[in-house]
Amino acid sequence: METLPKIVIVGAGRIAWHLSKRLKGKGLPVSQIFSRTEENARELAETLNTAWTTNPAAILPEAEWVILAVRDDAIQGVASAIAPFVSKALVTHTSGATAGNVLAGCFERFGVFYPLQSFSHEHAPVWSKIPFCVDAALEADLLFLKKIAKIIGNLVYHVNDEQRVFLHVAAVFANNFANHCFSIAEKLLDEHNLPFELLHPLMEETIAKALQESPARMQTGPAARGDADTIHRHLALLYQHPEWQVLYNSMTLDINPNLAIGAIDN
Amino acid sequence: METLPKIVIVGAGRIAWHLSKRLKGKGLPVSQIFSRTEENARELAETLNTAWTTNPAAILPEAEWVILAVRDDAIQGVASAIAPFVSKALVTHTSGATAGNVLAGCFERFGVFYPLQSFSHEHAPVWSKIPFCVDAALEADLLFLKKIAKIIGNLVYHVNDEQRVFLHVAAVFANNFANHCFSIAEKLLDEHNLPFELLHPLMEETIAKALQESPARMQTGPAARGDADTIHRHLALLYQHPEWQVLYNSMTLDINPNLAIGAIDN
Repeated sequence: METLPKIVIVGAGRIAWHLSKRLKGKGLPVSQIFSRTEENARELAETLNTAWTTNPAAILPEAEWVILAVRDDAIQGVASAIAPFVSKALVTHTSGATAGNVLAGCFERFGVFYPLQSFSHEHAPVWSKIPFCVDAALEADLLFLKKIAKIIGNLVYHVNDEQRVFLHVAAVFANNFANHCFSIAEKLLDEHNLPFELLHPLMEETIAKALQESPARMQTGPAARGDADTIHRHLALLYQHPEWQVLYNSMTLDINPNLAIGAIDN
Repeated sequence: METLPKIVIVGAGRIAWHLSKRLKGKGLPVSQIFSRTEENARELAETLNTAWTTNPAAILPEAEWVILAVRDDAIQGVASAIAPFVSKALVTHTSGATAGNVLAGCFERFGVFYPLQSFSHEHAPVWSKIPFCVDAALEADLLFLKKIAKIIGNLVYHVNDEQRVFLHVAAVFANNFANHCFSIAEKLLDEHNLPFELLHPLMEETIAKALQESPARMQTGPAARGDADTIHRHLALLYQHPEWQVLYNSMTLDINPNLAIGAIDN
């Protein structure tokens, strides 16, 4: 960057923490943290050795980029609250689930700066592996966001509003729901005094294949091979977990719609 | 092994191929391949440079270990067919879904030698990472199977019939169903002209976390945080895929049973 943009981060949650620290580490220090909660604002600001405020009117008037790193259901409210005090800055949110467009009524220059990764307090993000999905109303702002993403990360994609919401649904399947399948497996083993480690190699193999080829083409198992006997046995074994029977059934029929599975018989 | 056991493999599918080649590679050559289909039997036997037959009566009478590497629904039939010609050998199947007990009526010495991995023709198995789940009616046979598993692999578990069927159900969730979640994600992206690679880093992170900690504890996303607005938006976006709406709904409610999600509104 020729000149450092004045950056304000709104929010003090996981994304705000990781993003602001990364920006600082890459020579792009955040000039101010704004959060509704004084304690959160101060804690993050002190970590970054920067300013903070809980008052929208006190947001730096010279701010050039305002990052709304808040929950989806807070984006609209916080945008309205700060809009009177932010006139010239580019304002972006960091969400995969909310249209960039929701900022259109509040700001002239708006966009999205969405790091596609599930941040946690426990694990340091691997920035080179996080796809940044960026979008902006103005071409110059899009270029700016792409430049920033290239500085703090490696993978940059221009993803428009419509694409991004579907990307987010897809991420829920690939991350949350796949992880829930692992959880159910873990609980089943635990109930029968088997260590979850037993399944670790299979899980590693599953992901390795899915990253290498189309997961749809690589599908194996009783559903894929139409093994109705095994499927019925499995459904019967799950009788103590009717909710897992329902999942097993829906998954199986979606993998192989030609299968004729009768009603679940407890 | 002090003396090499005479091994006969029944079947010529993926497990038979991988297992027989591995046994040979570890100095435990298979003495004979038996398969109902001449072409399959001959092809595998020629690869191994060993004998083959399609006739149960021609199974080597001096066989000491007969491995039934056949589909679940073929185990019982093939066991009955060869039983008159196999009296002294230890007979094991390789299945996670069938009780070892189904062999009890046919053989005195029976058991299970179940490599917990999904074998494919495309990928060479990483033997050191495959858990071998073994069981046998007789203690001496159990020791023998553990010894063999240690020679061709690294991870060996004694898993009884009841544990094994639940392990198999758990494997279906951790492998097939997790993979199906990846498939759905892939299709969603494809429908919106986004590359599946976009989700690769998230998938790697998902598995890395699940291998490190309890996946149930590491759950994130709209369901885990009770974000009903996002969930409703996602369900609406899936209106062209009612079967994925059903899956999304069941997964979400199972992750967070406290969520109040209304009927799916198309």
